[in-house]
Amino acid sequence: MTAVKKIDFDVSDVRRYLEPGPVVLVSSAHRGAHDIMTMGWHTIMEFSPSLVGCMISAGNHSFELIRASGECVINLPTTALTDTVVKIGNTSGERIDKFEEFGLTAEAAEMVGAPMIGECHANFECRLFEDALVGRYNFFVFEVVKAHVAPEPEHPETLHYKGGGIFMVSGEIIDKSALFRPGML
Amino acid sequence: MTAVKKIDFDVSDVRRYLEPGPVVLVSSAHRGAHDIMTMGWHTIMEFSPSLVGCMISAGNHSFELIRASGECVINLPTTALTDTVVKIGNTSGERIDKFEEFGLTAEAAEMVGAPMIGECHANFECRLFEDALVGRYNFFVFEVVKAHVAPEPEHPETLHYKGGGIFMVSGEIIDKSALFRPGML
Repeated sequence: MTAVKKIDFDVSDVRRYLEPGPVVLVSSAHRGAHDIMTMGWHTIMEFSPSLVGCMISAGNHSFELIRASGECVINLPTTALTDTVVKIGNTSGERIDKFEEFGLTAEAAEMVGAPMIGECHANFECRLFEDALVGRYNFFVFEVVKAHVAPEPEHPETLHYKGGGIFMVSGEIIDKSALFRPGML
Repeated sequence: MTAVKKIDFDVSDVRRYLEPGPVVLVSSAHRGAHDIMTMGWHTIMEFSPSLVGCMISAGNHSFELIRASGECVINLPTTALTDTVVKIGNTSGERIDKFEEFGLTAEAAEMVGAPMIGECHANFECRLFEDALVGRYNFFVFEVVKAHVAPEPEHPETLHYKGGGIFMVSGEIIDKSALFRPGML
């Protein structure tokens, strides 16, 4: 697996990749430390500003890096990285450097200090937008401030977690736009 | 399409159905009025209590019913209901009775006043748990207080929205549990 070439993408349209509910990899950095975590608990919250709500457990090494820096990158892995995704979720960044351990390329982001994962299909640079529910629920609202997406394939094969070690892989694409009212598209 | 027979399901495990990110149908009722809306912006937030965070636009007829009653049912449709899901998302409950219009069965829930949609694969009865972000973001945190799931199929074919009238249908199931640390399963 090598790094994937990406182009700029409209931040107000990241729902195309996140709304279907894929497992993502969240990368973060603070004062020389960095980490990667898997995340399946997230939701789009607004198109513009481009907001994404994310659950990041306080028990996770990434939690403090993200909270202290107020930044992260949400990276979209495909099935080419399935085993790596599982391994990232089953190890702690307190003990290992996950970029090094799993042969991933740390690329410099443009707007945030957190590194982007080169091998992923898309990288969404995020800044903390709202922390009102962080203390009670570990729920962060991020604004996507810059988006990078590989131009192909249009519909990458993504991983969707069901718990118990079971994943669903994204399947068939169907176009129902003919049934939509114009203003709803 | 007829109503699907369901059995009780552990509320702390609804992530099995919601974490993969499907489009769901949210049903609600208040003072004789009821409605159904489609929802693609949601995330699991906790196992126990069983919390689900949901974006419900204030422009939606359902918003006031849910806000006033503090209750709803999250229903999981399968591809057997694809066209109905699209039509529900493209009509307003202010003008039509969506149960009647789309031939859906309103079943009485056990713990909430909102009706369950019989034709869906699963019904999750919800009570409002946290409204701190409703005013600023239309973000509701619900507790799933009762869950009903059809025993088969184990992996129903669900719909995942990408915007622009395009849906991804859930695909292949892969078991990676052998790669997990026991405590992570």
